Amino acid sequence: MRRRHFLTLPATAALAAPGSPSALCLNEDNSHWFYTRAGKTLTPEFVSSFVDQYAGTQVREILFSGNSQRTSFASKVWDPVWNGYDPEGPDDQPLLHSTPPEARAGARKWIHTAWELWRKGIDPYELWIARARQKGLSPWMSMRMNDLHNVDDPESYLHGSFWKQHPEFRRIPWRAVDWRDRAFDYGRAEVREYHFRLVEEYFERYDFDGLELDWMRFGFHFQPGREIEGGRLLTEFMRRTRRLADSWSRKRGRRIRVGARVPSRPETAREMGLDGALWAREGLVDLLVVTPFWASIETDMPLELWRRLAGDQVTLAAGLELLLRPYAGYRPLQFNSIETVRGAAASLLDRGADRVYLFNYMDSQTEMPDRENYPTLLRECGQLATLAGKKRRHVVTYADTWAPGEAAAAQLPKKVEAGQWAAFRLHVGPRLSRARVRLEVEGGEISELRANGDLCKPAGREEGGKPGPAAGFSCWDAPQGLNGFVVLDLRAASACHIHWVEVAG
Amino acid sequence: MRRRHFLTLPATAALAAPGSPSALCLNEDNSHWFYTRAGKTLTPEFVSSFVDQYAGTQVREILFSGNSQRTSFASKVWDPVWNGYDPEGPDDQPLLHSTPPEARAGARKWIHTAWELWRKGIDPYELWIARARQKGLSPWMSMRMNDLHNVDDPESYLHGSFWKQHPEFRRIPWRAVDWRDRAFDYGRAEVREYHFRLVEEYFERYDFDGLELDWMRFGFHFQPGREIEGGRLLTEFMRRTRRLADSWSRKRGRRIRVGARVPSRPETAREMGLDGALWAREGLVDLLVVTPFWASIETDMPLELWRRLAGDQVTLAAGLELLLRPYAGYRPLQFNSIETVRGAAASLLDRGADRVYLFNYMDSQTEMPDRENYPTLLRECGQLATLAGKKRRHVVTYADTWAPGEAAAAQLPKKVEAGQWAAFRLHVGPRLSRARVRLEVEGGEISELRANGDLCKPAGREEGGKPGPAAGFSCWDAPQGLNGFVVLDLRAASACHIHWVEVAG
Repeated sequence: MRRRHFLTLPATAALAAPGSPSALCLNEDNSHWFYTRAGKTLTPEFVSSFVDQYAGTQVREILFSGNSQRTSFASKVWDPVWNGYDPEGPDDQPLLHSTPPEARAGARKWIHTAWELWRKGIDPYELWIARARQKGLSPWMSMRMNDLHNVDDPESYLHGSFWKQHPEFRRIPWRAVDWRDRAFDYGRAEVREYHFRLVEEYFERYDFDGLELDWMRFGFHFQPGREIEGGRLLTEFMRRTRRLADSWSRKRGRRIRVGARVPSRPETAREMGLDGALWAREGLVDLLVVTPFWASIETDMPLELWRRLAGDQVTLAAGLELLLRPYAGYRPLQFNSIETVRGAAASLLDRGADRVYLFNYMDSQTEMPDRENYPTLLRECGQLATLAGKKRRHVVTYADTWAPGEAAAAQLPKKVEAGQWAAFRLHVGPRLSRARVRLEVEGGEISELRANGDLCKPAGREEGGKPGPAAGFSCWDAPQGLNGFVVLDLRAASACHIHWVEVAG
Repeated sequence: MRRRHFLTLPATAALAAPGSPSALCLNEDNSHWFYTRAGKTLTPEFVSSFVDQYAGTQVREILFSGNSQRTSFASKVWDPVWNGYDPEGPDDQPLLHSTPPEARAGARKWIHTAWELWRKGIDPYELWIARARQKGLSPWMSMRMNDLHNVDDPESYLHGSFWKQHPEFRRIPWRAVDWRDRAFDYGRAEVREYHFRLVEEYFERYDFDGLELDWMRFGFHFQPGREIEGGRLLTEFMRRTRRLADSWSRKRGRRIRVGARVPSRPETAREMGLDGALWAREGLVDLLVVTPFWASIETDMPLELWRRLAGDQVTLAAGLELLLRPYAGYRPLQFNSIETVRGAAASLLDRGADRVYLFNYMDSQTEMPDRENYPTLLRECGQLATLAGKKRRHVVTYADTWAPGEAAAAQLPKKVEAGQWAAFRLHVGPRLSRARVRLEVEGGEISELRANGDLCKPAGREEGGKPGPAAGFSCWDAPQGLNGFVVLDLRAASACHIHWVEVAG
C-alpha cells in the first residue's frame, strides 16, 4: 500500500470515499467543442462558460479529451491539430487535400477554432479545468491512446507525423483491411515512449484532479495473439503513469488520480492486453471505466464480476455510448433516449457501478435526438434515487468488442421455429412496479410469453418510438413487478425472427 | 478464518498445500462399474481391486459418484437403484416396464449388481475408499445434485419416488420440452431438504477425505430468471454442508474436504446460481471444479480469471469430458484421444489449474476409443513435466453451458467469403517447438494463413485421424514455436466454411 500516505492529502472535489453516492462522469471529446463553437467570438469567458451547464448536475468528474492522433492544445511533443494549417489558405490546402471536398469545411472548423485560441493565447483546457473546479466539479483530462479515425485515408489531417512516418509500427503491418489493423503496436518500445511523452506533457501542462488513459479509442494495441505479453507491457506503462501521478501529487500537495477505460468484460479485457482489474488491484488506477467501444450501449456488463476482481478501493464506472443496436447488423441506426439511458443506468448502478460514464453525450451535434432531455439526464441518471419511479426501458443489446478471434455472442437476431421456445435474458435493475415486454417480431406470431416463468398478458401493438423499430412493437404485460435478471421465455405460433427485445416500466 | 484450526489436523493424502505438484482427479460414475462387472463373482477383493489400476498414477483424488436420482448403495433416505426390483422377475417386470425392451437387460445389469452386493453385505464404496487410502490415493464421494437421465420417460427405473411424486417441484412446471425443464427446483425448501438428507447420509456412512457436490449433473437448478436469488440459497446450502464437514472433521480428527463442480465461466456460473468463486473465497469448498456439462471438452476455460476470483487457497480443477465437438451441430460425434487430452491438459495446467479432472474417462465402456492409451493418460496428463515433449493437439471447441437466455458464443463453424479474412483464437499451453495448423475447410481454399502474425507454410493434406473430420485436414506449418494464446488469421481464396481448427505439436 505504497500510496496510502496520499490519503491524508486534501482531495479537492475528487473521487469520493467508498460508500459515497454514485454520480455521472462526462467525457467531452477532443473536437466537438471546437467544431460547434466555430465562428463564435472566443473570449476567455465564452470558453470557460461551456462548463457551467454541468454545474449543479449529477456530473462529478468532467473529463476533457485533449487528443486523438493530434492534440487540440499547443503540444510541444505531439502535433497540434493546426500543424500544417494555413488560416488564410483555401479549403483544399495541402492539410485538407485528401479530405473529401464536402468534409473539408467541417474539418476546418475544429482546426481553425483550436488555432485561433492558440493565437490568442487562450488554452481552453486550462480554463475549463479552472471553471470546473470553481463550480464544484472534478476536472480530469483524458488521453486517447490509439485513435484511428480516418486511417483509411493515410494523408488525413487527423494523423500525427509519427504515425505517418512509421507504418512499420502498426499492429498489423502485413494487412490493412480494417481501421484497427493500422493501430499503433504498443509491443514496440518506440510506440510506448512516444505516447508516454504526451502523458508527461499532460501532467506538466494541466492542473487536473486526474488523468484518464483511454485505451478504448480504439482498443486494439497489439499484434494478434501478442496481447498477453503486450498486457504486461501496458501494466508497466500504467505503473510508470502512476509513479508520475504520485510525483505530481507530491509537488501539488494533493492526490492526483489515474483512470483507464477498458473493454466491458474481464476476460476479453485481459485477452486484449487491457487488464484493468489488475491495475485496480495494484492501485494503479483510481477510476476504472468498463465500456463497449462505440457501436452500441452495452446494457448487460458484468459489474458484479468487475467489482470482485477490481476490489472496493477503485471507483468503478459503467461506460455508456450514444448508439443503441440490438445486434451489429440492425438497421436503421438507433440512438439512445432519456428512457433507454435511464434503463441502462438503473441496471448498472444496481449492479454495483459507482459511476455512469457518458461518452458521446455532448451538448450538441453528438447528442441524443431528444436533446430537450439532456439537462434532465444530467440530473437523474447518476443515482438510483433520482431514477426511481421514472419511465425507463431495458433493451437487449450486444457487446461490440472482442479479442481477436474470440467467439462473439449476441442474443439477437433469433430465429424461432413454429412451436419452439426461445429465451432472452436481461437485467432490469431495481424493482419495476409494472413491466411491459416489447418485441420486434418479423414474419410470425408469438403464442405465449413468460417473464421469470410468469405468464404475461398480450397487450397489443405499439408504435416503434425512438429508439425502436419502424414496424412497431408486439407487447405483453408481466403480471407482477420485475427486478434484477429477467428471463423471457417465448413460444412461436409460427416461424419468426425476433429483432428487438426490451422490458419497459 | 474460522476453519484455520483444522489446518493443524493431519491430512491423510488429501488436498496438498498450495505450490505442490499438480495432479489428476478421476470421477468414477455411479453406474459404470456395476454395469461392466455384471455377472462377475463379487468378492470383496474383486470389488476392492478395481481401485488398484489408479495406484501409482497421477490420480490423486479418486471421486466415487454414489447416486443419480437413486443411490447405488443402501441409502436409508433415498431410493436405492434396486428399489422395486425383483431379481427373480423377467426383464419386463414393473420397474423396467417403461424402459425400451432393447435397453432392459443393460439397465438390469447395474441394478442387479448393486442388489447382489447389498444382499451379500458388501458396500463397494466402503471397500473402494479403504483400498484407495491404502494405495496412497485420496478417496472422495461425489453426489449428483440434480441428475436428469431419462426424465423424458417419467416412469423410468432411474427416478426417485420424490421426483415422481412431486412434479410441482420441477423448475419449469409449465413446460416439459427439454430434460432440463424437469430438474428439481432448488428454490423450494422441500427440494433442498430432500437433498441435504443425502448429504448427511454420505457423511455418516462413509469415511472419505472429501465430499463433492456435483452441481453439473445437470447444472440447471432454478426457475428461469430466479438464479441469482437461487444462488443465495445454494450458498447457504454450501455453508450448511461446510458446517457438517467441519463437525465430522472434529469427530474423525482430520480435515474433511468439500468440493463442487460448477460451469466453466465465472459469470455464467454466477448467473446459474452456482457461485463457485464465492464459495471458494468463503472457504466453503476446498476443491472447485470448473467444467463444461458433457457435449464437448472445453479447451478454452478462463482459469486465470477463476484463480483471481477464487483465491489461492482453493484447489482449482479443470474438468474434462470425453466428447469433443468444434460446435454443437458438428457431425459425426468425436471422442478425445490421448493427444487431445494432452493438449487440453497442457493448456489448462499452464493457465493455472491445480488439477485436471477426468469425467467419463473410465476403464471400459465410457472410455477413450484409443483405450490402450488409458494407462499412459493416467501417468502423463496431470503434470506439465510429464506432458513436455509429447505429441499433443489443441482443438478449438465451444462452451456447452449457458445461463437461460444468455448469448451463446462459438468460434465455429465460420463462413469466410472470397478474399476475406477470419481469425481464430486458441491457447496452446507451454511452448511447442514445432506447430502445425490443421483445418477442416469445406467448399473453398485458403490462400494465406498466419499464426500470431507470422506467415505459415502450406503443408498439404492429412487424413482426419481420430478425432478429426472424415474428409481430412488442410495443413500449414508455423515458422516458429508457439505458446500461450495463438491467433490464426486466414484468408479465403474462394468462399468456404471452416469446421475444425487445431494446432498440433
